[in-house]
This record gives sequence, structure tokens and C-alpha cells, in this order.
Amino acid sequence: MSVWTVNSDLARERAGATFDSEQVTSLLYGGPENVRKRRYLQNAAIQDPVLRSAKPWAFQDRAEQYDTALWKHVYIMKKLDDMGITDPQERAYYQQAGAPQEYSPFSLHTGMFIPSIEKQGTQDQQEKWLPLARSLKLIGTYAQTEMGHGTFIRGLETTATYDPATREFVLNSPTVTSMKYWPGGLGKTSNCCLVMAQLIIKGKREGIHLFFVQLRDMETHKLLPGVESGDIGPKFGFGTNDNGYLKLTDVRIPRENMLMRYAKVLEDGTYIQPANQKIGYGTMVFVRASIVTNSARGLAQACVIAIRYSAVRRQTEVSPGGSEAQIIDYQTQQYKLFPLLATAYAMYFTGKYAEDYYNEISSEIEAGNLDSLNQLHAVCAGLKAFSTWDCTAGIETCRLCCGGHGYSHASGLPKLYVFYTPGCTYEGENNVMMLQVARFLMKIYPDIKKGAMLHKFVQHLGVDLSQKSCMTEEVTIDCLVKAYEHRAARLVKEAASQIENLQRSGKSRQSAWNASTVVLTWAAKAYCHTFVVRTFCDTVSNADVDKHTKDVLIVLCKLYAVHGIVENLGEFIQDGFLSPRQVSILQTKLAELLAELRPNVVALVDAFDYPDRVLDSCLGRYDGQVYKALYEYAKSSPLNDKEVLDTYEKYIKPAQTLHMEQDLRARL
Amino acid sequence: MSVWTVNSDLARERAGATFDSEQVTSLLYGGPENVRKRRYLQNAAIQDPVLRSAKPWAFQDRAEQYDTALWKHVYIMKKLDDMGITDPQERAYYQQAGAPQEYSPFSLHTGMFIPSIEKQGTQDQQEKWLPLARSLKLIGTYAQTEMGHGTFIRGLETTATYDPATREFVLNSPTVTSMKYWPGGLGKTSNCCLVMAQLIIKGKREGIHLFFVQLRDMETHKLLPGVESGDIGPKFGFGTNDNGYLKLTDVRIPRENMLMRYAKVLEDGTYIQPANQKIGYGTMVFVRASIVTNSARGLAQACVIAIRYSAVRRQTEVSPGGSEAQIIDYQTQQYKLFPLLATAYAMYFTGKYAEDYYNEISSEIEAGNLDSLNQLHAVCAGLKAFSTWDCTAGIETCRLCCGGHGYSHASGLPKLYVFYTPGCTYEGENNVMMLQVARFLMKIYPDIKKGAMLHKFVQHLGVDLSQKSCMTEEVTIDCLVKAYEHRAARLVKEAASQIENLQRSGKSRQSAWNASTVVLTWAAKAYCHTFVVRTFCDTVSNADVDKHTKDVLIVLCKLYAVHGIVENLGEFIQDGFLSPRQVSILQTKLAELLAELRPNVVALVDAFDYPDRVLDSCLGRYDGQVYKALYEYAKSSPLNDKEVLDTYEKYIKPAQTLHMEQDLRARL
Repeated sequence: MSVWTVNSDLARERAGATFDSEQVTSLLYGGPENVRKRRYLQNAAIQDPVLRSAKPWAFQDRAEQYDTALWKHVYIMKKLDDMGITDPQERAYYQQAGAPQEYSPFSLHTGMFIPSIEKQGTQDQQEKWLPLARSLKLIGTYAQTEMGHGTFIRGLETTATYDPATREFVLNSPTVTSMKYWPGGLGKTSNCCLVMAQLIIKGKREGIHLFFVQLRDMETHKLLPGVESGDIGPKFGFGTNDNGYLKLTDVRIPRENMLMRYAKVLEDGTYIQPANQKIGYGTMVFVRASIVTNSARGLAQACVIAIRYSAVRRQTEVSPGGSEAQIIDYQTQQYKLFPLLATAYAMYFTGKYAEDYYNEISSEIEAGNLDSLNQLHAVCAGLKAFSTWDCTAGIETCRLCCGGHGYSHASGLPKLYVFYTPGCTYEGENNVMMLQVARFLMKIYPDIKKGAMLHKFVQHLGVDLSQKSCMTEEVTIDCLVKAYEHRAARLVKEAASQIENLQRSGKSRQSAWNASTVVLTWAAKAYCHTFVVRTFCDTVSNADVDKHTKDVLIVLCKLYAVHGIVENLGEFIQDGFLSPRQVSILQTKLAELLAELRPNVVALVDAFDYPDRVLDSCLGRYDGQVYKALYEYAKSSPLNDKEVLDTYEKYIKPAQTLHMEQDLRARL
Repeated sequence: MSVWTVNSDLARERAGATFDSEQVTSLLYGGPENVRKRRYLQNAAIQDPVLRSAKPWAFQDRAEQYDTALWKHVYIMKKLDDMGITDPQERAYYQQAGAPQEYSPFSLHTGMFIPSIEKQGTQDQQEKWLPLARSLKLIGTYAQTEMGHGTFIRGLETTATYDPATREFVLNSPTVTSMKYWPGGLGKTSNCCLVMAQLIIKGKREGIHLFFVQLRDMETHKLLPGVESGDIGPKFGFGTNDNGYLKLTDVRIPRENMLMRYAKVLEDGTYIQPANQKIGYGTMVFVRASIVTNSARGLAQACVIAIRYSAVRRQTEVSPGGSEAQIIDYQTQQYKLFPLLATAYAMYFTGKYAEDYYNEISSEIEAGNLDSLNQLHAVCAGLKAFSTWDCTAGIETCRLCCGGHGYSHASGLPKLYVFYTPGCTYEGENNVMMLQVARFLMKIYPDIKKGAMLHKFVQHLGVDLSQKSCMTEEVTIDCLVKAYEHRAARLVKEAASQIENLQRSGKSRQSAWNASTVVLTWAAKAYCHTFVVRTFCDTVSNADVDKHTKDVLIVLCKLYAVHGIVENLGEFIQDGFLSPRQVSILQTKLAELLAELRPNVVALVDAFDYPDRVLDSCLGRYDGQVYKALYEYAKSSPLNDKEVLDTYEKYIKPAQTLHMEQDLRARL
């Protein structure tokens, strides 16, 4: 990218901030030492001449995108190994800067295939496969989702039938819907795969298990007999990945290819159940917590772009004849963007809290005490859904806040959206996740009602619902949190009552549940929202930063909470918890908070510390030279390689003659 | 597309509908005769062997997309001329079926360039340019938007300076921000352009005018001296169009090239103002009304896809061990999709009402009486914003309701989204539009307050705000409409009061306005929402359909209204207009309406009458053979042309050796 001086509007914004953004960066990324490492690794990737040589992604067709991602990610893995970087977070920093928003063809190889063998393979299996996998001799993926089956795992149709005669499993895709569909890297990259299938022994179904299946010849990479596989075709995004399909017809694998650390099939076909069905719970929780952080990252980048651009863009004279205003000074623009900025911070802090809490209780988990984990599991299902919904919708709002230019790939925003929106579906479809939270809440509801001592994650649901809000003009954090607690407790109670009433009117528990999933979802969302608000408030209150910085963070946190009330007002006032006067206080406060935050928003997006190369946006550049960058982008469009395209001679010229003839004929 | 039998779930849905969808199709498209014409033209395009020969769009790269669009649209124009089809609506039916969701490189040529010459050109200019334009000798576009300037037209920077010595205008792009940016077809297709520029005569600015500028040589298509132009590069969608940039440096055009039907520049440089500044108002209103219909079209198609798919897709056993349920039977899915279905109908009816009303008052307009037009102008600015926001967000909701498959281009949904979302920005940025409505509402507020007789579009804003809702368990349409009227009237009053209070506290009118744009937007949205609800109710009440059909339409209409209240509850209850009991009635009613509508949703999307070729979706096929279609789609992905890609030998094999070496080294 070209080096230009910083746009004067942006320079003025930065000079006018009332706090030191470096302190916030430290808070976000775990202290100055981690910030230093993060910068070092990002810069190493950004400066790398090989990685820099790639053509801009938006100028590539699908095949080139896949091609580029393949060599880039081979290169990145090799480079990280050379540098001796083993920490997953550190590897991620390098990779995210070297291939920003590019879904690696090896992502399931490193993220699911290897870890699954590590966790669910026997010692023998690990010794056999892991060295090959780490050296890329085996490139594997994880095939769970089928064309007709997603989040409901028990519905999977692929079968693995044990043949005691040959001591083999015979794998089959018996229907069109049973075909594996979507696994990353499956179409073209992988030569083997962990296939999730229904285990059948002597005609009896023994449930879902994982099987190691070789798909392609190790030398020629050709598909093996009985294996039909390929790319599933172009998608909204993820052009770099060969998400694939897989149809298995009588594919035989040795008995030793079932992952047998827990469940086992003996040579004679005896099936041995796993000792603990909840194995693997922990990983799922951690993955979902990391999706919260991931969503925050997507929204944060969108906010950097939209807020910097809004500080540079000028539109419409404020008073007749005056100069045009920075669009960030429009209250409507602030009302859209500033709460999203607050949301990005909220989700960073919440994701971090969940990850830290998981690590905190990991010794409990290892000791077999899953009590805290069970609570965290329910919470994380909800937070995953809550954060991906809010963050991906937020990215689109940021895009729309950039007007027409937001629609160009030059803005970087469409790519962010298509990269993050799948988070609403993968690792548990969001609506299903919310209903899992609801199921958890309904399960503990009898205890809530009794006033029992509950886990700290849910204690507040036992709050006295007859209490009114303590909100005054001061709008304290305490009263804000209490408002969220009240709303969640009330909606949980209402959902429970509705189910009870429907049962009392003669419906079965299941029918009553099915007729209440909308209110159950409201309750679950309110519960998650409370969790996020409280975590945001706690993090900010306890943050080790100077007073100037804390003041700004408190404004941000209050904005998040107040905006959430105003936008979901009905749920807070339906039972008279907030009085009309208190509502009016909050609405006024909201306008004040927007104005208070205004001088610091550019510094707050700077604090996310995303280099220009990662943002990959003409609008979000640190130097604010938006228009020069757009001009450069346009000039480099491949469609401009020729001044006159061949299409002119091919289509336009003949069309002119054709029409002229008709015109002439018409005149005769 | 392959011919398969209809999926049994879909067949059962159709058999179970309680009304005749053909009656609804007639209602939507203006009677049986128009439906017949629409079908005839759509089929003609769909069956056309030339148009059928195009490669699926998602398998094309950007250059191919442009190339294909170019020949397709030349062919379509020629074909329509051959068939003697001149009616714009009829031409649109053919074009939409022949090139669905493909933004033509000629769209501004036919949609803006020619009409502007027709309306704003002198007789001489029309005679000179129109025959050439109609025969494609001249291919023109309309260059208004600049890199740094959008909706605020007065801010445009391009200059046209009159030189009396040579009787020419000298056109210049004096800054980077003044460069024209975004006009459709400007980059590669057009050889001329109507440029909107600041007219300068003898150093004096005379405002914005249109100038005919030749850009490329008529024979070679090369750019003329002083003209720098090209494609602006890849975008979220619109890959078929060469949206372009244009930089003019001392480009001289004869005086006769300014469009001079109204304003004029005489040879000596005398400037003559147009007689009526509001000329062109009507076209703008009509275009915005047509965007309402257009948004409805996008959302309707998304609903067809998501609802048909939801009837076919099965997920999770409802009771343990039972069969998996159609996902359309989940209340959460219904809560998302059915109100969107209702929204699509609401927007169709509203768009049609606005267009019809415009035609109704067109004789008034021609007679110079712009009173009704002024009202309609304000309304249409708001409806354009309201409909594009709701419909495009709705398309994304439909996509997410299709789970993972919604993310594949096989679903057709990503293309719908990127095709329709620009509607939020073009023809007036939505936030600006809403504030125009607000400005109109504040302007008439003194009259509202006085209780004056007002135009029928705003009469209801004078409603008595002390009245409480008449809502009973019957949930009549009348009480629903009154609830919307009350909310709009209250929010308009609150916005007005806030501005008054701020002025009383010492702020200028302008500052008070700027500090109130959020509440003003709330008021404007509430106003538009009321307009849509009332139009929907009126249309349904007056529809010439049988009782069965009307019953269904009334359920749909009530669902739209009740859902809108529940989703914006705070605004309806903040002042106690609805009592807690009434809210509870509405929430219960909402669940009942979803259940009531359930048997008819497939027939209601069938009624939109979109052929499979237009939907271009594996998920939305009329026959419901979703999975077979997905399988075909995957197999045809260009990445599958070769079983083993060249990338295997190029990147993967070397990587394996490399890593093995490292592994070996590590072991030594």
C-alpha cells in the first residue's frame, strides 16, 4: 500500500482523544508483552515478501483463490515451524495477518482432524497417524455434516457396518441425503478423513462413531474405489476453501481404523461402550467461547473501517452555505456505529472471560467434576449464538454506514461479512443453541422458584420480580445490570409459566415446549444479554488502566447497556419495572453518551490495533487517504487491463449495425 | 434443470392449502390477463435456446460475468424489438426471466440516459441523440455520484465552465473526490455520458446541470483526449456491470451539449433559469415507488426459497424416536419466515398503491397542481427506505433460515441479497430519506397540532393521544391500524416536543434538529410503518377474491400488523396505550396466527409465481427435489473438472517432502 500523509481529520481525531489507546490495546490482548508479540508476528507476516506477492483476493477467480490459499497456507505452516512458533494463539496472529479472512484449505486438518486423533485415538492410532498428519503426508478433514443432516447428530445416515469375517468396517452412504456435504478441505485437498457414521454390528445400531477413511491414493492423489468426492461449488464467501462432498460405496477399512480410545469394537464384534458419555464436552465449550472472541474480531474490524471512514467522509452542509460535516457527527450515524463499537468490546471481554473461566476450572474437569463445566456449556451455547447474530448483523450495519463505497470490495466489508456470517450456522445452529440455553434454564427453574442457592452464572435469576428499577438520572452501572437481571428473570418465569399453563390445559410437555419456543428464545436471549452486560461491566470496573482510560471504558459500557434497553424497551417496561420517567431518563442518557463518546471513537478503534493489511480496506486505512486509495483500487481492476475490451468488437459493434438496419427498415 | 417428480412433502402442502393461489397471483399482478402475459413472456425468455446457453453465473469469473451480461442484454433488447414489445413492464418481465438478478450494462442507458434526454433535452437534442441512442450507436450513462459526493447533490464538484469565445463548456474533475464513481455501464460499455456538473459562467456558479459528453471514439471505442475512465473493480455483487469512474481534464463540448429544455445558456453566456424548479419531481417519486415493488420482489423470491425448503427439510425428531420434523413446523422458524412472507405481500401492495396513486394524480401534475405529489413525494422517500431496509434484511433472514445450504450459491439466496441490498443506498441513502420524511412531518406539525384538515396521507397524525387502545381478543384490523396511528402520532409529537425543548433551552433550530435525528427517524419509521399497515389492510379488505382467499389474506395482514407491534413493543406501550393485558392478548394472538397461516404458506409463496429459472435455486425448486439438485450442482462445480488439480503436484507434494525432512531432522 502507498505511503501517504495522514488525513487531517483523522489526525485531529487522534490528537483530541482523552485517553491512551495503548492501555486499551493491552487490556484487549492480555498485557504489553502479548501486544508486543502480536505486533511482531503480524508484522513478520505482513512484511514477508512471499506472502506479499499474492494478487489481491478480489481480483482472483475461484480457482485462483483456492490455488493461492493452498500455497499461502503451506508456506505459513512451514514458516511458523521454522520460526519454532508452537503456541496456537501466536500461530493464529501470524496466519491472520498473512492470510486475513481467508479460510485455509487445511483448517480442518489442523483444527479438527489432528486434535480428534489426539483426543479420541488410541496410543497406537496416534503413533501411526499423527507424524504423517503433521508432515502433511496425511491431509485429513472431519466429515460430520451430511446433505440432509446438520446440528441433529443422531440423524446422521452414513453407516459403518462391522464385518467380523474380515474384521473390517464397511462404509456406505445409503441415500442422497446421507452424502457428506460441507466439510472444509474435503473436495480437493484431503487424502483422508474422519467420517462420523452410525456403527452397525450384527444388525444393531450402536450410535455415532468416528472412522479413519483413506480417500485418495497417497501418491497420485486419485480417488480410491468406492469413494466419490469433490468440491461443492461456489459459495457466498470461503472461495479459498474446497468445502466438499463425499459419497461412500462399500468402502472397507480395517477394524483398527475406528477411533477407539473410548468406545471399542473387539475382533469378534463385541461393542464396548465408553465409560463417560460427556467426554469431549470441554472442547466444544472452548470452541464456542472462541467463536465469541472471533465474532468480536470481525465486528471490531468492521468498526475500524466504518468509524475511520465516517471521520474522513464529509456529506451535506450542516448549516446552509457552511462546510460539509464529517458524517460521524450525525447523530443517526453515531446511533448505528457507537453501540456496535461497544458491542465489539463487549464480545471481546465476554469471549475472554469464558475462555479464562474454562482454563480456571480445567483442573476440576480433569478431576471429573463437571459441575461448573455444565453451567459454562449452557452459557457458551447461548453466547456463541448471541455474539454471532449481533456481530455479523453489525458488520452489515457498518457496511451500510459506508454508503455506496461499502458495497465495493475496496471497502473490505463484504469480505468480512461473508467470512463471519457462517458462524451463525457452524458449531451448532444459532436457533438450536438458544433453545439449548432455554432447556437449561427451564431445567433449573424449579430451583430458581424455590430460591435455592445457584451457580453464580444463574443466581440472579432468583431476583425478586416485584422490585422496581433503582434507575435515577445518574444511570449507575449497578442499576443497569439490575435492569437486565430483572428482564431475564421475568422472561424466564414467563416462559416457564406458559409451558405450565399449556400443560395444565392438556398438552403434553413436548407439545407445550414446541408451542413456546419463541418465548423460550426471548428468555434465552435475555439471559445471554445479561451475561454480556455483566461481564462488560465487571471487566471495565476491574481493568488495570488509568482514570482517563477507565472513564472512557465506562462510557462505552454504559452505552452498550443503555442502548440495549432502549432497543428492547418493551421487555423492560412491560411489567412496569421501569417507569415512563425512567425510560425518558435513559433515552436522554443515550443521546448524551453518544456525544460523550464522540471524541474518543477513533482512538477506540485504533486500540483494536489492526494493521492496514489485515483490514484490507481503502476506507479503513490508518492514514485515512480513502479517495486516493479508491482511485488506485479502481485503476488496478483487471477489467481495466485493456482500454477497449474484446467484447466491443464481439457484441457491441454487431449490435449497432443490427439495430441500424432495423431502424432503416422501419423508416421505409 | 432436470425433471423430477414433486417431493411428497411439498405435494401434501399444496393439497392442504385452503385457498386458490391463482386468485392471489391475479391480485398481485393486476388480473388474469396480465398474469397470462407475464407467464408468456417469462416462458419465452426461459425457453429461448440462446439465453439458455449461458454458463451458470456462479461458475463465471468477473470478466465472464460482464461478457455474458453484455451479449445477453444485447440479445434481449433485440429480441424484444423483434417481438414488438414496447411496454416497459412487459419488457421487464422478459428481461427478469432471461437474466434474473443480473444488472445489465445497459441499465442506465435505457433507464436514465434515454429518459433524461427525452425529458430534459430540447427538441433538437432529442432528434439528434435519441435515434442514435435507440440503435446503440450512442451508448450512454448518467454520471451523478462522485467519489466524495452522494446524496447531497449540491456538493458535487465537477465543473462545466462556459467559454463564450469558443461557445463551449470546459469540463473538469478538479479534485480526486470530484471524480465520477459508480455510474453503471460507465467503465467499459458506454461511449457517451450525461455528466452532472456545476455550471460556471463568468466566474459565477449557476448550480447543477446535465451535459452530454462523448467519452469514446465512435469507431474504435478508445477514450478521447482528456477522458480517463474505467471500471471501479469488483464489488459485493453486480459483477455483470462495469460501474465506472470518470476523470475529465479540460474536455470541451459545444454549447448545444447542455440539456436545455428548462435552464439555458445563451451564446453570449447569459444564463436563463428554469421556470419551475420542481420539474423532475414526478419521475423521482415514481422511481422510488417502483423500488418498493422491487424490494418486494427480492423478498418474495427469498421467501419462496426459504419456505419451500423449510417444508422439505427435516431436522430433529420432535418426540424421542419419532421421525424428524419438517423445519417449517418449528415455531421459531415460523416466527422468522411467516412475518417476512407477510412483509413481501405488504410491500407489493404498498408499491402498487403508490404507483397507482401517482398515475391517478398525473393529470393534476400536468396541470401544475403539485399538492398531492408533494405528499406522495415525502411518503415515497420514506417507503423506499422502509421497504429496502426490511426487505433486504429479510432476505438475509431467509438465507440464515436455510442453515448451511443457504450459504452456498446453489441456494440462490446470496445473489438475491447482493442484488437487492444496494437499494438501501441508491436513489437516496435511506437515513437521509427518513430524515426527509421527518422534515416533512415537522413542517406540517403545526397544522397537526391545530387539528387542521390534512391530506389523507397524514390526517391520522391528528388522532387524540389520550385515547387508549380498543384492542380486544378479537384483534380487529381496525384496532390494529389505530395502534399504528397512535404510535406514529405520539412519536411525531415527541420529536416535535424535543426540538421545541432544545430550542427553548437556547439551541438554534439547526442544532436542536441535529441533536434529535434519532427520535426524528423513529417518528418517520413509525409513520411509514403505519402507511404500509393501512395499505395492506385496505388492499386485502377490498380485494376481489373469494371468501377462502380473503380469509387467508386477512390472517397474513393481521400477522404483519401484530408482529410489528410485538417487535416494536416499547413504542406501543411506553405511554400506556396498550395495557399489559392487551399486550398479552397480542402475544398469544401472534402464536395463533403463525399456526393458522401454517397450512397455507407454501401456496402463498407459489402465488408469487416465480419460475425455477428465475429463482435459480436448488433449495427453492417447485418440485422440492432439493438434495438431488444440490448433488447435481456440486458435481458441476468447475473445480471438479479434474479429479486431481495441478495444485497437488505444485504445492502439496513438495510440502510433504519438506515437512518430512524437518521431522527427520528433529528426530536426529
